Amino acid sequence: MKRQTSAEEQNRPHVVILGGGFGGLQAARALRKAPVRITLIDSRNFHLFQPLLYQVATGALSPANIAAPLRAILKRQANVEVILARAEAIDPEAKTLRLHDGTELGYDYLIVAVGVRPHYFGNDDWETYAPSLKTIEDATRIRRRVLLAFEEAERESDPERVREWLTFVVVGGGPTGVELAGAIGEVANHTLRGNFRRIDPTQARVLLIESADRVLPSYPPDLSARAAESLAKLGVTVRLNTRVSDIAPDCVTLQSDDQQEVVRAKTILWMTGVRAVPFADALAAATRAPQDQLGRLIVQPDLTLPDYPDIFVIGDVAHYAHQTGKPLPGVAQVAIQQARYVARLIQARLRGKVSAPKPFRYVDLGYMATIGRAAAVVNLRGWHVHGLLGWLIWLFVHLMALVEFQNRLLVLIQWAWNYFTRNRAARLITAEPELQPERERQVV
Amino acid sequence: MKRQTSAEEQNRPHVVILGGGFGGLQAARALRKAPVRITLIDSRNFHLFQPLLYQVATGALSPANIAAPLRAILKRQANVEVILARAEAIDPEAKTLRLHDGTELGYDYLIVAVGVRPHYFGNDDWETYAPSLKTIEDATRIRRRVLLAFEEAERESDPERVREWLTFVVVGGGPTGVELAGAIGEVANHTLRGNFRRIDPTQARVLLIESADRVLPSYPPDLSARAAESLAKLGVTVRLNTRVSDIAPDCVTLQSDDQQEVVRAKTILWMTGVRAVPFADALAAATRAPQDQLGRLIVQPDLTLPDYPDIFVIGDVAHYAHQTGKPLPGVAQVAIQQARYVARLIQARLRGKVSAPKPFRYVDLGYMATIGRAAAVVNLRGWHVHGLLGWLIWLFVHLMALVEFQNRLLVLIQWAWNYFTRNRAARLITAEPELQPERERQVV
Repeated sequence: MKRQTSAEEQNRPHVVILGGGFGGLQAARALRKAPVRITLIDSRNFHLFQPLLYQVATGALSPANIAAPLRAILKRQANVEVILARAEAIDPEAKTLRLHDGTELGYDYLIVAVGVRPHYFGNDDWETYAPSLKTIEDATRIRRRVLLAFEEAERESDPERVREWLTFVVVGGGPTGVELAGAIGEVANHTLRGNFRRIDPTQARVLLIESADRVLPSYPPDLSARAAESLAKLGVTVRLNTRVSDIAPDCVTLQSDDQQEVVRAKTILWMTGVRAVPFADALAAATRAPQDQLGRLIVQPDLTLPDYPDIFVIGDVAHYAHQTGKPLPGVAQVAIQQARYVARLIQARLRGKVSAPKPFRYVDLGYMATIGRAAAVVNLRGWHVHGLLGWLIWLFVHLMALVEFQNRLLVLIQWAWNYFTRNRAARLITAEPELQPERERQVV
Repeated sequence: MKRQTSAEEQNRPHVVILGGGFGGLQAARALRKAPVRITLIDSRNFHLFQPLLYQVATGALSPANIAAPLRAILKRQANVEVILARAEAIDPEAKTLRLHDGTELGYDYLIVAVGVRPHYFGNDDWETYAPSLKTIEDATRIRRRVLLAFEEAERESDPERVREWLTFVVVGGGPTGVELAGAIGEVANHTLRGNFRRIDPTQARVLLIESADRVLPSYPPDLSARAAESLAKLGVTVRLNTRVSDIAPDCVTLQSDDQQEVVRAKTILWMTGVRAVPFADALAAATRAPQDQLGRLIVQPDLTLPDYPDIFVIGDVAHYAHQTGKPLPGVAQVAIQQARYVARLIQARLRGKVSAPKPFRYVDLGYMATIGRAAAVVNLRGWHVHGLLGWLIWLFVHLMALVEFQNRLLVLIQWAWNYFTRNRAARLITAEPELQPERERQVV
């Protein structure tokens, strides 16, 4: 059923949304009744539920369980057109974008929700030895490396090398690092139990490296303490007040105070440090908009860029400090609330309201992290919960937040399954060529 | 719980199984009570349910739904050790194998179930332009190409190029080709309906090329006719008595009688032609065992190789013509029944029975293929069924054949979902780098 766009529709104001993440998708949906033409641009054909990516990386869920095709989600919203593309440059005076394939696209309103990507603080070579977790491909790559480490250990005779294969270093004690380290501890101590004949997976060492004096430093101290307890139960060794000063193949150098320690590990995972995607720099250059040290765009109280009231920046790529003095955290709730604010603002302007709008205000509904099985730390508007109850709240909130009902059902079944059997059915070693003969093998 | 192997266990006869497919896995399970040490060797860490691979390739299922980790399946079978490796060479006199990493492995009994791989009849360059479907990676690659074709068509302005993007050529009218072509027809005519704003997915052309005078030539003629009807309903154009004489980028040359036709298509899929994997040639060279033109090993009535009564060859890689005069088909049932036969034979020998065994006999339980939604053709021991009933039988048989209960549940839910919504939630474009700028873009 090809949709015929009438001339009237063609003449509607054109809202271009860059990015189909939490912010971009929410913006498109919030404008579904608005008299506008919307073009949603993303380089991927699906919306990814980032918060559960670590579960794909540890074989608990399949990629499709936490991804929903953008076209399927927006199928019935006739005023949206989805384009699989990436914006590379902008001319804010002519109000046009240049896409990756050279085509030009004009806009009346631009909503920039392009997000951030992993950042290695100038040590780009570290990326090769310590992959990060931002995309589906990252998740399957990490899944592959973690599972392959146990396989290699099983085939290795030299105990020193076995120890290297069974040492996992997670850099960064924020929510993702904590959740990933916990999940790897769970895999080693429960999922793989009895799976091997030569090695004992429970002998694996999982190190979590955090530069602050506690894990989840952005959380209240009592929840950090609970998280640390849960990590300990899963055999995760937490190193606080510790930084990574160097990463080389199979080797990470830890720095605490004036002490250095070199840890030999075949699996090093980078769960700290992000930076705005390149388009943010192109946008800043073209609009002379200020950026913070992470390349995020410092926005006005109404989320626009200085001198460019038709360009809105939301989500992780936006630096909004007008509320608390420091930038809002890079979480889904911030992006979603900013998207709704911008959608309301655009519709008000379309109705001719030009008076200065109220500044954006973030309502913190809370935040949570899960650590292994039946354990989570939750802060719901100041109410602190942990353990099983916290886990059930975490479970409910995340299930409800999944975009498609089918996925809620599939995820629920797999969580129930994993809970009772402690199995992780999606632990496949994929996305790689066949095993290579010894001479051709390289560090995986 | 590291398992201690007693000296007694160490001294048991060593059965090495190459391949964790239907044959290899069944052989390992059938020997669970036998007083032997079993080593199962596969280059992948999971058993793959090949018959449903085309559903992963068309976004109906996730890879993990049709794959089960070998270690999880065999976890409780104490006499099996799983090694992630690939055999590269054999010394049948010394009874040793050399693995891909150079290590040597001895055996008392060897069960070779290494299967076949796609074959391009000497036109290896065709592989680049016309991928095949044998592995999980093949499936996600085809999924990517099929979905990306619609995305590119949506962004293309030149109608001629749009037509190229929306033309899908499936080479080979056997079960896999028929099922894949039907599924692509379903995607174009139902799944993607209303998903696009510029193109009309139902305008896509799906061509199925078969050299014989009917699809499913190995099936009874009436079922071939039913399959052809179902394909027509899904908008698939079947070309019979037609061969592929050349494949170039975006271009396939069809040959029927003395007529040539060049079809421009961005997506060409190779669902015909297989050959034994390289190890079969190494084995034949070392044992001087005869091979057929597909490289399959021509086995004795007891599935051993001539002069090597301790080497058994089963499944797709075995050429067994002692029953009907022509080789048995490469289907799961043959591999499974051969595995059970070999397991019984080995146990009989261990009990000292050296008398010549009865030759292997394949009991044909039937075969079936599904074409799109609620339609399948089934032959159960001579009873021919088609349409909805055939589909329900197909559904039941395939669900029951899945190795893990969790997967049965997940697959059932997704099939029910796809049946009612005609959606395919797993239609993700993954396993590839970000979109490339125009100058860098290459044919995908």
